[in-house]
Amino acid sequence: MPEFLKLLPPTEALQVLLNQLPAKSLTGEWVPSTEALGRVTNSTVMSPEDIPAFPRSTVDGYAVRASDTFGASDTLPMYLALVGESPMGRMPDFSIHLGQAGLIHTGGMLPGGCDAVVMLENVQAARPGEIEVLKAVAAGENILRPGEDVKKGDTLLPAGAILRPAEIGGLIALGLTRIEVVARPRVGILSSGDEVIPPQDVPVPGQVRDINSYTLGALAAQIGAEPKLYGIVPDREQDLRESLAQALKECDLVVVTAGSSASARDLTAAVIQEMGQPGVLVHGVNVKPGKPTILAVCDGKAVIGLPRNPVSALVIAGIFLTPEVDRLMGVEAKPFRPFVPARLTTNLSSQAGREDWVPVRLVQTGAGYLADPIFYKSNLIFSLSKADGLVHIPAAANGLPVGELVDVELL
Amino acid sequence: MPEFLKLLPPTEALQVLLNQLPAKSLTGEWVPSTEALGRVTNSTVMSPEDIPAFPRSTVDGYAVRASDTFGASDTLPMYLALVGESPMGRMPDFSIHLGQAGLIHTGGMLPGGCDAVVMLENVQAARPGEIEVLKAVAAGENILRPGEDVKKGDTLLPAGAILRPAEIGGLIALGLTRIEVVARPRVGILSSGDEVIPPQDVPVPGQVRDINSYTLGALAAQIGAEPKLYGIVPDREQDLRESLAQALKECDLVVVTAGSSASARDLTAAVIQEMGQPGVLVHGVNVKPGKPTILAVCDGKAVIGLPRNPVSALVIAGIFLTPEVDRLMGVEAKPFRPFVPARLTTNLSSQAGREDWVPVRLVQTGAGYLADPIFYKSNLIFSLSKADGLVHIPAAANGLPVGELVDVELL
Repeated sequence: MPEFLKLLPPTEALQVLLNQLPAKSLTGEWVPSTEALGRVTNSTVMSPEDIPAFPRSTVDGYAVRASDTFGASDTLPMYLALVGESPMGRMPDFSIHLGQAGLIHTGGMLPGGCDAVVMLENVQAARPGEIEVLKAVAAGENILRPGEDVKKGDTLLPAGAILRPAEIGGLIALGLTRIEVVARPRVGILSSGDEVIPPQDVPVPGQVRDINSYTLGALAAQIGAEPKLYGIVPDREQDLRESLAQALKECDLVVVTAGSSASARDLTAAVIQEMGQPGVLVHGVNVKPGKPTILAVCDGKAVIGLPRNPVSALVIAGIFLTPEVDRLMGVEAKPFRPFVPARLTTNLSSQAGREDWVPVRLVQTGAGYLADPIFYKSNLIFSLSKADGLVHIPAAANGLPVGELVDVELL
Repeated sequence: MPEFLKLLPPTEALQVLLNQLPAKSLTGEWVPSTEALGRVTNSTVMSPEDIPAFPRSTVDGYAVRASDTFGASDTLPMYLALVGESPMGRMPDFSIHLGQAGLIHTGGMLPGGCDAVVMLENVQAARPGEIEVLKAVAAGENILRPGEDVKKGDTLLPAGAILRPAEIGGLIALGLTRIEVVARPRVGILSSGDEVIPPQDVPVPGQVRDINSYTLGALAAQIGAEPKLYGIVPDREQDLRESLAQALKECDLVVVTAGSSASARDLTAAVIQEMGQPGVLVHGVNVKPGKPTILAVCDGKAVIGLPRNPVSALVIAGIFLTPEVDRLMGVEAKPFRPFVPARLTTNLSSQAGREDWVPVRLVQTGAGYLADPIFYKSNLIFSLSKADGLVHIPAAANGLPVGELVDVELL
């Protein structure tokens, strides 16, 4: 086991973990595109067709030969013979010759012979069978040529793309009704503690219900993984060893909440260390809440030892579990995290050299948002359910003053 | 039908719609709390228990009578007799009397007679059966009294709360393994157009595959609703009338994409108008893309007529469909929308008096993010699948200059 000389900062600790993990190894699976919302592409998707497949109008108007409109103006309109109307959904049964025009709707197929469309508002009805063009158009104006949006063979989506409604629409537009996505990573979750009981049980004095299995399970589902709960493991080495070995065999990544005492944490670290190479990489992270975090890699799979208290476990899982699930799925982690700017309602103190994450409630005012910190002494989960988001205090700061403009990341 | 004297701004148009809708009328349904991620509470949830249910330590240390530690310091430690260890998960079988202390772990139950816990690091081992306390504690320090987090009868969650991982943890902590959530609103989706064919079909020249049913269906699912597709409706009054009537009977809200020509839009508006009182409220919104939007209420249900082009339909659905789904579920719409700040890579022109939404790609640089607008002429869905987010140009501006700091809302 390497020596732990100092607590690592969270970003550095994450790099230590990710550097020891192999390339993405999950398999792909084919699913209907209409059920692929939020899934991740397993391979590059190329276009099987040109889009559009035929020349189309982008406006309501008249298909013309652009040269027939040159010089047209309000005072000097050009007169063209109206020779037909392009039907929606079918090929027009006429072509445009010199001095002719055809009525066309947005998305309609261009008749042969034309090279532009004059918008409806730039045309006046003249005698029956004739129109007055009041404005010249250039060749190519208001039309789309075949393949102008997407060409057959173009890369539509790279591997690792998250499928949003727009991507699903793009697949459907090309007739790609099935799509190969990355299998959901299985996240094994072990909750430890002699005092912990299942949620349906009635605690006797001294007992509390398991929370972490369910907050972490919900988080795993939210980020696209498949949680697999291994229940509550008593604080005994042999029990932990057996449960952890089974979870590692069946899952792609395992999280285990470790006991709060130093001895329980050491026991957890020692058992993780037995599970494979290179073993425990980080034992202790310079972040509040979450200092006793353990990061390990056991024969190619990440094991994350989380603090037992539910607020810490959930905040720290956001820092380490989410990026590892993204990596497993081959998602290129987006560097940008959206936030709501707000002003602190109170001073926040922090220890220099340590990152802090503080839950806050957002309050709307005429002058923008206020971030009202939620103070808590027990780390109970209810303090997070009152919060709209988290404020990050960087390691370099020893606190933030009242009135400071902060970035609130929503929970 | 009211007269349409001018195009309404989007926020005003939304208010006109929401003001004509009745109070939330969806029913509740009971689901397992562990499967309730993202659902919305249908009623106030009150705590059935005190949390904690018993007096607990918040640290690893020694349970003491605070008065026994008064005056303790590094140079003048107080000696206390060690009388036991509080076991995790069980009631301690000893009490603390004058001059006594008991070992306790974080979350352990306090023995009787004590009123504080001295942290482990402020204690030294003395002779066997004795400890030296190096720092005084006040009564109540490092302990949680029963009900200090949550009292029996306290409101845990109001009706209309969205269940995140933290809320699910809170329910589980209290043994609330089932929760009453609002039924998912059914969103009926009609896609219109003679040129539109189902995604599995092969288009002939002039035909295109239906995109809107699937982008809007994915969006509806994403925001917590249940999409119900009514397929492709030809541009004929009677077909639209029948499909719309059926969708309104079976759903809580209906969206219909309207043809692009003025006559197709008028036909759509006229058919919506027949469906119930008060009928069409807004016909045309001052926004790009999305000017031809129709908003209506028919006998208590919203009908949203969206532009047929897929980018407009998806952007406009974000403006009108999402708030109406929130209203149906009784969600108090959060006023805050998170964003990523970025600088424009180019000038964006806009018509004063009109709101614009422009898709952008985000580019990371050493000096922050750049927002690179995606220009498109055909409104094809692929322009949105290249975008990370949207930039809003307010109605008062007639454009935004290159280098301007903008708020990018992620797609």
